[in-house]
Amino acid sequence: MSALSLRDAVQRITLPDAAVRDAARERQARLTKPPGSLGRLEELGVQLAAITGQVRPRFAQRTIVIAAASHGIARDEQVSAYPASVTAQMVENFARGGAAINALAREARAELVVVDAGVDPEPASHPALRRRRLAAGSRNFLEQRALPDGHAALILDAGIALIDEIDPNETWLLALGEMGIGNTTSSAAIVAAITGADAAAVTGRGTQIDDDRFARKREIVATALACHAPDPSDGLAVLETVGGYEIGFLAGCCLGAAVRRVPVILDGFITAAAAMIAVALAPACQEYLIASHVSAEPGHAIALRQLHLTPLLDLGLRLGEGSGAALAIPIVAAAARAQDEMATFEEAGVDDVDDKDEDPT
Amino acid sequence: MSALSLRDAVQRITLPDAAVRDAARERQARLTKPPGSLGRLEELGVQLAAITGQVRPRFAQRTIVIAAASHGIARDEQVSAYPASVTAQMVENFARGGAAINALAREARAELVVVDAGVDPEPASHPALRRRRLAAGSRNFLEQRALPDGHAALILDAGIALIDEIDPNETWLLALGEMGIGNTTSSAAIVAAITGADAAAVTGRGTQIDDDRFARKREIVATALACHAPDPSDGLAVLETVGGYEIGFLAGCCLGAAVRRVPVILDGFITAAAAMIAVALAPACQEYLIASHVSAEPGHAIALRQLHLTPLLDLGLRLGEGSGAALAIPIVAAAARAQDEMATFEEAGVDDVDDKDEDPT
Repeated sequence: MSALSLRDAVQRITLPDAAVRDAARERQARLTKPPGSLGRLEELGVQLAAITGQVRPRFAQRTIVIAAASHGIARDEQVSAYPASVTAQMVENFARGGAAINALAREARAELVVVDAGVDPEPASHPALRRRRLAAGSRNFLEQRALPDGHAALILDAGIALIDEIDPNETWLLALGEMGIGNTTSSAAIVAAITGADAAAVTGRGTQIDDDRFARKREIVATALACHAPDPSDGLAVLETVGGYEIGFLAGCCLGAAVRRVPVILDGFITAAAAMIAVALAPACQEYLIASHVSAEPGHAIALRQLHLTPLLDLGLRLGEGSGAALAIPIVAAAARAQDEMATFEEAGVDDVDDKDEDPT
Repeated sequence: MSALSLRDAVQRITLPDAAVRDAARERQARLTKPPGSLGRLEELGVQLAAITGQVRPRFAQRTIVIAAASHGIARDEQVSAYPASVTAQMVENFARGGAAINALAREARAELVVVDAGVDPEPASHPALRRRRLAAGSRNFLEQRALPDGHAALILDAGIALIDEIDPNETWLLALGEMGIGNTTSSAAIVAAITGADAAAVTGRGTQIDDDRFARKREIVATALACHAPDPSDGLAVLETVGGYEIGFLAGCCLGAAVRRVPVILDGFITAAAAMIAVALAPACQEYLIASHVSAEPGHAIALRQLHLTPLLDLGLRLGEGSGAALAIPIVAAAARAQDEMATFEEAGVDDVDDKDEDPT
């Protein structure tokens, strides 16, 4: 069986199941709680039903995919408070279990899949690490397009294929994360390119860079956009000109998940940029997305508005790695459990509201 | 061994450990993440360390205590959209595992302890149900004090004793929930009495009552306060005049937890009212509290401000039962795990920021 390609994936993505959504709403109205009292968990439960096609959704597995890659812009310009070498070191930290995301994944009972989508230097091989690299990181997009010819489609294919490898008979939940020193710069350029927002509005301090680096970072984003001017509706062109390998890989994961009717929990600014590329390629993909949190990066709220997503959490996170997505897993899973596991008024023998016109059932 | 009494508990409550707090901050600064990048999880991790006395806090157990009781005000006046009979029916639903809190507790890996603190009619006995009732619910506080002489202290003692029964050698996490048709009316009166806020400002629609019931509910709260006028600094008097048995029991749980240095995750409006009674009795108790969410009840935000607590979640919940507290358990536990399980820069061999003045270690 050959791997699912970008073109096939885009053609196979359809909207979530409206009939199942209606049936899920109908079930929810009979559960032992006042209508609306579970707030956002109720809409989430219904969305999870429509995505999975199950009126009572049950997740057999939770998987966090962290894609990592190096960025030419971080190698050549000081856009981060940390040296570019930290990308590879943190990938090894993920593989050994010592990073924040490892602790948060354990709490969320999620399997962590760490993907080398183009890290420089190449991390030591490790059972927890999957090698999906096409190059030792992207190129400096102030000098040329970030990805060489053909690499944008290939890295999207790799993301689609990773999701396609997971057992199709299971219902599961996907959360996305990333690592790549310099990738808030690339994401700012992607979000500005697609939304038309100003470079200054979408560029933040990332790892808390100082004023000089921040000014330079804004200038880099503005210059790159002026220079490449990608068509905002062409997801491949945006990825190729100002993107990065981990961002392309994660956009592929979004597409692959929509094909397989798997809900996708986004993390922060970088995963939102990846999702915007996926949605540019296949608009129906948007319906499979869940925003875990709003990060301290100013471009994140702009990206979420464009994606029509309202974040579940606002905890002042600005780490990436999938940390916000991991924290949202138990909330999303709880919404599914409420939809699935709660008794109805009838089953529980609980009286419903005392002033409602009811039919005799 | 005789049970810990209210007087002993209040005397034994001290502030969390400042030295451990400092050591926890120092450890956190060396973990493999940019400083501050885990947002609210960082302050939480430090608070959990100071409460438990462990620089690297580890919770062996998570327990949700749901206390339930009936309210004279709900029996005599239509302050809820649901009949007063629902209190007992929902207690049986909790015991059988069919309520929202059961689904959410499973996701949070928490043990659920359901307490009958005065439910009318008395629920059928069940292995999951603990009987701590002094009466078949509170009295109508429009007619007389809600609790008879002596019952306020006794129900506080019962809450303190429940916490004291748990193995003192374990480090654990407590979350609180409640059930009691009519208890937002009692809580509104408590919050107004202690904060001095207007009855209208703290009274909400609870189970989404209609305009007529809402007007009557506000009038009841205002009348009860005018009639009883309890001393705002006298937690016992407030509980006795306008409280309820489940609220007193949960206030006792807060006190018992502070004695045992157990972090307490509050749920919504009613548990906040209970916490305010506990803090009135022992101000240091406040430092052991964590606000899970802000509910749709308008008095909740007022209560949280008085308690100096900032909620972790805002998901539009207005169910009670401990639903918000249960959803916050994985976030609180994740904060402890990050504090405990993450590697330091040194352990992981990850380069720290490239422009920081560092000592040679």
